[in-house]
Parts: sequence; structure tokens; C-alpha cells
Amino acid sequence: MNPVELILKKRNGYILTAEEINFFINSYLSGSITEYQMSAWLMAVYFQGMVPAEISALTKCYIDSGKHIEFPEGFVTADKHSTGGVGDKISLMLAPIAAALGLYVPMISGRGLGHTGGTLDKLEAIPGFNTQFSMEQFKDLTIKHQVALVGQSAELVPADKRIYALRDVTATVESPGLITASIMSKKIAEGTKHLVIDLKVGSGAFMPTIQRAKELAELLIQTGHDFGQKVTVVFTNMNAPLGTHIGNALEVIEAIDYLKGIYQPDTQLITETLVAEMLLSAEIVATKDEAIHKIREVVANGTALLKFKEIITAQGGDASVCDDYSRFDQAKHQVPIIAEHTGYVQSIDSRNIGYALIGVKAGRMAFTDAIDYGTGAILFPKVGDKVSQGDTLGTLFTNDLANSTAVLQRIVSSYKLSSEAVIKEDIIIGKMTIADISV
Amino acid sequence: MNPVELILKKRNGYILTAEEINFFINSYLSGSITEYQMSAWLMAVYFQGMVPAEISALTKCYIDSGKHIEFPEGFVTADKHSTGGVGDKISLMLAPIAAALGLYVPMISGRGLGHTGGTLDKLEAIPGFNTQFSMEQFKDLTIKHQVALVGQSAELVPADKRIYALRDVTATVESPGLITASIMSKKIAEGTKHLVIDLKVGSGAFMPTIQRAKELAELLIQTGHDFGQKVTVVFTNMNAPLGTHIGNALEVIEAIDYLKGIYQPDTQLITETLVAEMLLSAEIVATKDEAIHKIREVVANGTALLKFKEIITAQGGDASVCDDYSRFDQAKHQVPIIAEHTGYVQSIDSRNIGYALIGVKAGRMAFTDAIDYGTGAILFPKVGDKVSQGDTLGTLFTNDLANSTAVLQRIVSSYKLSSEAVIKEDIIIGKMTIADISV
Repeated sequence: MNPVELILKKRNGYILTAEEINFFINSYLSGSITEYQMSAWLMAVYFQGMVPAEISALTKCYIDSGKHIEFPEGFVTADKHSTGGVGDKISLMLAPIAAALGLYVPMISGRGLGHTGGTLDKLEAIPGFNTQFSMEQFKDLTIKHQVALVGQSAELVPADKRIYALRDVTATVESPGLITASIMSKKIAEGTKHLVIDLKVGSGAFMPTIQRAKELAELLIQTGHDFGQKVTVVFTNMNAPLGTHIGNALEVIEAIDYLKGIYQPDTQLITETLVAEMLLSAEIVATKDEAIHKIREVVANGTALLKFKEIITAQGGDASVCDDYSRFDQAKHQVPIIAEHTGYVQSIDSRNIGYALIGVKAGRMAFTDAIDYGTGAILFPKVGDKVSQGDTLGTLFTNDLANSTAVLQRIVSSYKLSSEAVIKEDIIIGKMTIADISV
Repeated sequence: MNPVELILKKRNGYILTAEEINFFINSYLSGSITEYQMSAWLMAVYFQGMVPAEISALTKCYIDSGKHIEFPEGFVTADKHSTGGVGDKISLMLAPIAAALGLYVPMISGRGLGHTGGTLDKLEAIPGFNTQFSMEQFKDLTIKHQVALVGQSAELVPADKRIYALRDVTATVESPGLITASIMSKKIAEGTKHLVIDLKVGSGAFMPTIQRAKELAELLIQTGHDFGQKVTVVFTNMNAPLGTHIGNALEVIEAIDYLKGIYQPDTQLITETLVAEMLLSAEIVATKDEAIHKIREVVANGTALLKFKEIITAQGGDASVCDDYSRFDQAKHQVPIIAEHTGYVQSIDSRNIGYALIGVKAGRMAFTDAIDYGTGAILFPKVGDKVSQGDTLGTLFTNDLANSTAVLQRIVSSYKLSSEAVIKEDIIIGKMTIADISV
């Protein structure tokens, strides 16, 4: 096969065979197809798209480029993937709750970049917590403790890692087919049989319209199906930050609060919905009501918190942080965030807040940038709330007072106020499974 | 400026500023933008296109990457560009005729690749003929002899040369904007003020439809205009081989025959039309009839042939070939080409004939392949002609009888016959100049 002809074929809108995709990816990995031919092909894929069979072939190439895990018969594995958000600490509650209800959760997470945080960074805010394990150790941890919360090892889908790095510097990230192969290869290789995906929809979110979100959902579900994985996509309209705490240690604290029964309405709704879908997919419950009942039970009786402590200890962390938040890194300064105007909160630009908090090192612009675990913000107002000039909107946690004025201003400006009362929109828009895809 | 943002901007269909294009191209040339970013950008350009201002900015980058020629005041320079064909030896007649009529013709040509031949290879079939000169020598030759027929020196538009090589291996050749910048940068840098472009249209030709040919023509004309060059595009419907001779020495022989007054109707029509447009553009004549009259005159009185001999001698070649064709490389064998069926020639697949003749080394598949100057074919039938089974269609010139059967078969199969009489189509479809572009 000729590399140029394969680029041409995709450029001209034809469907590549599995054999052609294998050849292209494997030749790239072995060095006989160059970086510049791969990037031209990726841009052609961006414009022409890929059909499900092509995406599955690419996903298989990614999986086969490294090791993958198979859990023994009888281990019901489930995981969640989120397309990213600000203050999204759902994984920290979801994993122990799901485990407390009998599921096995082999969760591989990423780091924060730009305005979005990463589960790995949050976990590492727990003193001693280790996220780097081999695939074998990860499997053992999951079998022993029902949950493992780790980073992507070099053994897992290395092809995706290399191609993702190339996409990042060639403006070829936003392709539904490439996104699907990237997400699904990891989630299939980690051995998950039931996957729930939190797909954020709306302006400023991962998918700008419900139409495009549904197209991506179909690809994700179909690809999982091709590999024997049941995928449930939950569409959420959540452009505002989730819960009240943003920042690494701060978000772990909010998660521990949750596991102690101190809920924020939005995080509760999303956590319960996603865990319920995991339980329904695994047929551990028959109805959503039954799922919600069981979820609240393991929080109320402390089982879920106990599971979280077990994981922390198993991964080398100091579980006593759960009972003593002062053991987390503390920011030197706490500055009140004050409303400058009066009105009803119409929208909250969470992306802008995420970028603002990079100013206090709660996040990073490049993977090589250092972060401060103790910094961030607690922010109370939600869409629809009334705020009055001079009200305290929340607190900024920072180690550096020098630029706090600029950060505060950027946070305050993220709240768009209206003089008229604002009707809240539903957070959960809908869901999709293989049953919803016409075949 | 950020390279990724510029790729993204083009990918998303926005128009780049001249400053942004300069930055992108110059950063690529200096090495701070990588090959894989350039190829991703080229593919984005393939899909999103470029507006005339972007094409002119790119053309300027190409020109500024090397040296360019300015002829002294009073030197009326004109040149021709053809989008390529089989048996297209028009340049060999056109250049001396135009010079004999007072024009200065600084002609930079290319080599043959795949099914199409190249003027440089044809010229080098003349023993001793040298095509490699510096830009300065090329200018001097043109000033002294009115014509110079040379290859592209490393000093001319090196950026285009490097980017063209990348386009070739990343399936990004067929972009009107990139094609325009590539053609026009060379023709502007060589100092030509009046350019006539022979744009082949039709199935199998450079441009498949007249609509797309007109779009490309507008870009070519507009770009020339931006640099003070008058461009005339002549649309030709010429999918059959031009004239009767195909092969390097054979085509030079047909060209010399022409300059001696032995015309083939199709080459005569195209040569006279293109030279006439050069003379009209330069305002050396007032009407096309006047141009045709003058063209025939310099052929009839031998001035054009004398000019051709002068160029050959000036570039180190043996001008006596014009009077003694046996001084050209001779193929060892001449094999008659016999018609297998009876009918009217409906079409001639010149691409297929071009590829067939690579089998006798009259052409090449890669620039590193050697060619035999003496091989090729003389083919007589034209579209509309009646041929009968057993008729001699022409002669194959080869040094290798081993594979001549396969080559003969491929040539014969290129003639599609019809049982009914065929109406010939017009060869010249139309023309376009700046006056035809609505501004």
C-alpha cells in the first residue's frame, strides 16, 4: 500500500478498509510513514470524517499498540468518562459509591490542562497518593479493592498518546472520529464492560449543540458495542462550575463532604444519575429509583466513605485527610470575592473562571507547569440565584496576593447578571444507549 | 503568532492576513514551524481554499524566498505555461517564433513525470544542449538571444520547491490556490510581463470541467495582475496526444519540421493561437489575423528556424540536428503499430499512451529514473479519423523488443473506436483575461 494514496483516498471522501487503517497506523508507529503524512491524514479525517467501521479499526490499532486488561469471569466492571468541566469532581464520589454497591471500577484518569481540571491532580492533592502503576498493578488493585484511580501508563494505548500529541500541535483535535477512538481505546483497554459518558452540551462546552453531541454519542456507543462494551451517554447542560469548590485539594474536600452526606444539588444530581446508569447497565438494579435509593444508602451508612479511605490507603495516600482537612496543603491567603452589581445570575462562564484560577496556580497552561494543590476558589452563586452588590460570592485561596486583584476581577466578570428573574435550565438533558441507535 | 492557531484559523475557514501567511511560510523555511504543521496547514488549505489576497501573499513569499529577474526598460518579455499533456512540444515552436517576432522569452521549464513529458528532457535530446544556468546567466542569455530555455535553478522560488515536494507526498497537490502560487511565483520571478497559459480541460485533463478551469483561471489572472503581469488563459480541449510524435528526440524533430513549414493541424492551431495571444497581450499586433499572418511569415521565411538554431548554439547544443535528424539518439528498433479493429476514432486516451511509453523509457515514473532520448512513438490517427483492421496506426521506437508487445497493446487499446462517424470537438474552447473578471 502507498501512504500518499491512502491520504488521497481519505481526502477524497472514501471509506478506508480496516486493512488500510492498520497499515497506515502501524507504518506510522514503525516510522515508515512520516509525521507530516500522518498530520495531513489527520486533517483529511477532520474534514471527511470516519464511518463507525473505520473508527473501530482505528480504536483496535490503538488498543493493540499496547497492553490491555481482561478481568476474570464474574467481575462486573464499570467506569465513567466525562468530557471535562470546571469543578468536575464527580469521579471522586462516583468511584467509591459504585464500588460500595458491588461494581469494579478500573478508572484511568488524566491531568488538568487549560481551564479544565484533572482527576489525577486532585487525587495527588492527598498527601502520599500515588497514581502511577503498571497495568498489572492496576489490575491487581482493582481486583483487591474494587477501585483503582490511576494515570495512563506508557503501556496503555501508546499509539493514541503519540497521535494525540501530534493532533494537539496540528489543529486536528476536534474530530468526532478521532475523539471517539481516543476515548474508547483507553476505556476498552482498561477492561471496563459498562461505560457511562457524561457528555457536556452547550455554548462553551465540549459539544456546542445537542445535534452534534448526539452524533458523537452514536459513534461512542457504536464503537463500544463493536468491542462488547455497553455504553450509556448522558447529555448534561452544565456550563457553570460543578458544586462549590474549584481547585485540587478544595475539590477533594467537597467530595469527602459529599461522602459524609453534605450534598450540593448539582453534584448530587449528576453523581446519582451517572452511578444509577452504571448500576442499570450492569443490571444490579432494575429501576432508576432503586438505584438512587441504594446510592443514598451507601452514603448515609458510611460505606462509600470507607471505600474511599480504603482506596487512598491502598494507593499510598494519607486517609486521615478525610477526618482532618488541615492535612491538605493550605493556601496562605483567603480573599473574599465580592459582587460588584445586583441582579439574577443569568450565566456563569466556567471556562473564564478556570483560566482565572490558573493565575493562582490551581491549574496549568502546559503539562510542564507546576500547580499549587491548596489554591482555588469556593463559589456559591448558581444560575438563577439573586446576588446583591457587596454580597460575598465566595473565597479565593491563593499563595500570592500580588495578582489576586486581577484574578478576583476575572472571576467576578464571569457572572453575567440580569435585572429580571432567570429560569434555571435542566442539567440532565437526556441519555442514549445502543437501543436508541437505528441499525 | 502561534502556528497552531494559524492552522486552526484556516481549518475553520477564515481568511489569513498577508502578515500571517508571511509568518507561517517564513517560520517553516527557518525551521520553527515543522513539516507536520505545514502539511496539516496545506491539507486545511486544500479543503478551505484561499482568496486571491491570500494567494498573492503566498506567491510573494515564494518569490521573496529566492532571486528574481527584472529586465531593463523596453524589453517586452512574454512566456507561455501549459498545464501539461502528451506530445505537447508547443514550447519548442512557440519560443523561437515569438522571439523572431520581437518578443523576449525567458522560459523556465520542467522535466517529465508520469504520463506527461517535460520541455527540459526534450531539449536535452539535442546533443550538447545545456539547460542548467544561474539566474544571472539566464537573464544574459535572454537579453542576448531573446530566448533562453532553461531549468529551474536553486535560486528561483526555493520555498515553492520545498513545499511542492511536501505536497507531493501528502496528497495536497490539487488545490487551486496552491497551484496558482506555485505556477505564478516562477513565471513572475523569471521576469515575464505577458503570460499565456494553456489550460487543458476535460476528462483526463488537468481540469475536469470548464467551470473548475475558469475558477483556476481567475486565480491565475488575478495573481498575475497583483504583480503587474498580464495573463491570458486559453482553454483547450485536448485529451488526445498533440501532433504525431511522442518521445523526446521525436518531438524535437516534429518541432523542427514545424519550423520548416511542415505543420500538423492541431499543433498549428494551438501554436498559432498561443503566440497570437502573446503578441496581442504585448500590443505588437492589433488583431488576431495580423498575428497569424506574421507567425506564418517568420516560419515561411526561415527566421523562426534560424532563431531556434541560434538558441541551440547559445546553450551549447549541436544545431546541425536541425538539418540532419540522424544526429539525434536513434532507437534500435522500429515496430509498426497495427489497428486490431475497424471504426471511427471516438477518443484517444493520451494518459494511457503516456504511461505505455514509459515502458520504452521515453518517460519516467520517478525523477531518478533514466530516459532514452530516441524512443517513443509516431501516431497518425486523430479523433474522427476512420481506421481499418490491419491499418498501420504508426511506429513504436524502442531499444528493447522484449516488452514491445505489451507496449503496443497498451497503445492500441488507447484508441476507442465507434461504428458510427464521430464529430470532432473544437480544440480551442475559449480564453480569459483580466477584462473578463468582474471586480
